Amino acid sequence: MKAGIYNGIKQIEMKELPRPTAGDNDAVIRVVKAGICGTDVHAYLAGGDDVGIHAGSQFGHEFVGVISEIGKNVTGLRAGDRVTICPTTRRSESCGLNSTEIADMTGAFSEYVYVENARAGYNVFVLPDSLSFETGVLTEPLSVASHGVAIADLKGSEKAVVYGAGTIGLCAVAALQNKGIRDIIVSDISDSRLEVARRMGAVAFNSKDGGLIEFIKSQWGVHTGNSSEECINADVVIDCAGLPFIVNEFIDHAKTLSSLIIIAVHGKNVEISPYWVLAKELTLKGSRGYTPEDILTAIRTLDDPSCRLGEIITQVYPHSQLCRAFEQACDAGNSIKVVIDYGK
Amino acid sequence: MKAGIYNGIKQIEMKELPRPTAGDNDAVIRVVKAGICGTDVHAYLAGGDDVGIHAGSQFGHEFVGVISEIGKNVTGLRAGDRVTICPTTRRSESCGLNSTEIADMTGAFSEYVYVENARAGYNVFVLPDSLSFETGVLTEPLSVASHGVAIADLKGSEKAVVYGAGTIGLCAVAALQNKGIRDIIVSDISDSRLEVARRMGAVAFNSKDGGLIEFIKSQWGVHTGNSSEECINADVVIDCAGLPFIVNEFIDHAKTLSSLIIIAVHGKNVEISPYWVLAKELTLKGSRGYTPEDILTAIRTLDDPSCRLGEIITQVYPHSQLCRAFEQACDAGNSIKVVIDYGK
Repeated sequence: MKAGIYNGIKQIEMKELPRPTAGDNDAVIRVVKAGICGTDVHAYLAGGDDVGIHAGSQFGHEFVGVISEIGKNVTGLRAGDRVTICPTTRRSESCGLNSTEIADMTGAFSEYVYVENARAGYNVFVLPDSLSFETGVLTEPLSVASHGVAIADLKGSEKAVVYGAGTIGLCAVAALQNKGIRDIIVSDISDSRLEVARRMGAVAFNSKDGGLIEFIKSQWGVHTGNSSEECINADVVIDCAGLPFIVNEFIDHAKTLSSLIIIAVHGKNVEISPYWVLAKELTLKGSRGYTPEDILTAIRTLDDPSCRLGEIITQVYPHSQLCRAFEQACDAGNSIKVVIDYGK
Repeated sequence: MKAGIYNGIKQIEMKELPRPTAGDNDAVIRVVKAGICGTDVHAYLAGGDDVGIHAGSQFGHEFVGVISEIGKNVTGLRAGDRVTICPTTRRSESCGLNSTEIADMTGAFSEYVYVENARAGYNVFVLPDSLSFETGVLTEPLSVASHGVAIADLKGSEKAVVYGAGTIGLCAVAALQNKGIRDIIVSDISDSRLEVARRMGAVAFNSKDGGLIEFIKSQWGVHTGNSSEECINADVVIDCAGLPFIVNEFIDHAKTLSSLIIIAVHGKNVEISPYWVLAKELTLKGSRGYTPEDILTAIRTLDDPSCRLGEIITQVYPHSQLCRAFEQACDAGNSIKVVIDYGK
């Protein structure tokens, strides 16, 4: 099979490797579409060791495909099933890798992916017939956002602010909408990304145009009472940008009993006031990865005809142009999600 | 009636004031026991304006008593009922005070307390016959801790660490035990306070004796896996001490998916790593005050024969010795909860 190999910064090689075969408990999946993740771009631009993508490895972890071979002991899955997988549980933990390495070396940029101890609803997920591969390929990033929305524990009537209109921020919009949330403001500095947020039904704000806090107040009014004078009327703020100012912009302007969900990786420490966390009864919560339940939620969300997340796919490249696809994905101003099409 | 008046730092006056009378919707309660709160001590030692205790006011907000007069429109409450109140809802918000001022100027150090628009289960709470005034007087501080434990959303099998063995820390022990939590480590630097924690059934650790983290590991083992290598095996940490190092001691050593509940007021900012909040999926939550539900929980907790929170009452003074009682309450090394007995 043709396999995309990560060989270091700006070095991707298309190599001929033996096609994996399924043991009695395993599955082999023929990849149909794969997505380039921010983690993959990070490895391509800055090196992959810190994210579990080591030189010489297969990589890529967002994909959909068809089961081409299934072990005789596996129940609930058949050759021909249209599926996606949970990358973190693709291999058993006995293989000496941590779950991040297991995920990031999935090999979605190769023609076939191997899943050890395949189990439906645990590491392999059958797609509904009504869900196309074109949008199904977004299951993995949407699962990340669905996890953050799940731990925010929303009722459906809340107002939500999302920092960042990249893949995860826009996935957060879809995940919020799937929970019934209609009042969503998305902030970014890219007009083209914000235009996608707008087409998805969110209110978009370019923070180059002034203060986000004032904009939120102009949209939703000012919340008062119980230490929350002059606060924004948002119930949950989702950080999909990872910029240091976000944590304190939240603490300073959040209303009583509201939550900040941190999905984006922060590179810097921030100084916070525990006093105001207490006085406003705020919640700060970190969200990492996803559970099988989040993957099922993401599949259901994508399968809903009202979901417009497919809008985030900006370019599709054939597998033979994997390097060109990576160059495109590095151009953040002109792409959101770049997809690889295996053409069969 | 004899009323304890706050006149400024180290100035408490016993003044003769007219006994309040109940309007048609109101209640007047004869105080039987009152507790001196840390907030009262703060006003006594450092001034009360920042905590809503202004010079010339009645003050004190922890008490139990008997309804002496009830308005004709009030249902569900009768003269003679043994009660406590919710200080923050003692008066309607139309009176131009915020809820902290309403609470802190309750006048529990006076012989009678007035409750506007008295409503059972909202601002007046009838005590069960089986709950003595002696321990019932702890309802208010226990409600503060019960609120923090409630928002921690525990199942009952968790392991909990409590920083601080003052009134709120020891109330947190009782509130945790009421939730079914049996594994509790309490940290402080006062052997006498820790002895009370021990008598209540917690494991006590004097942090003068070395590192708390190592002690927790020695008691409960080390948690490993998913970014939590060498972490403490605690599910929830409750900050009833307010010291700046606590937030980072939590983030650095907490295991994945554990929570920090901040009940204590912090005077300083702290620098935190949002990265580790995300990587370990930690929750940081502020807890302030209480709801009527928390007060009912506190009453049920105190009424349980297994509750040993009465141990925290270190001294009882007659109302005539209110100033001496305050001097005692300022001596943190030799007192925990100081109670005023109205002697009838």
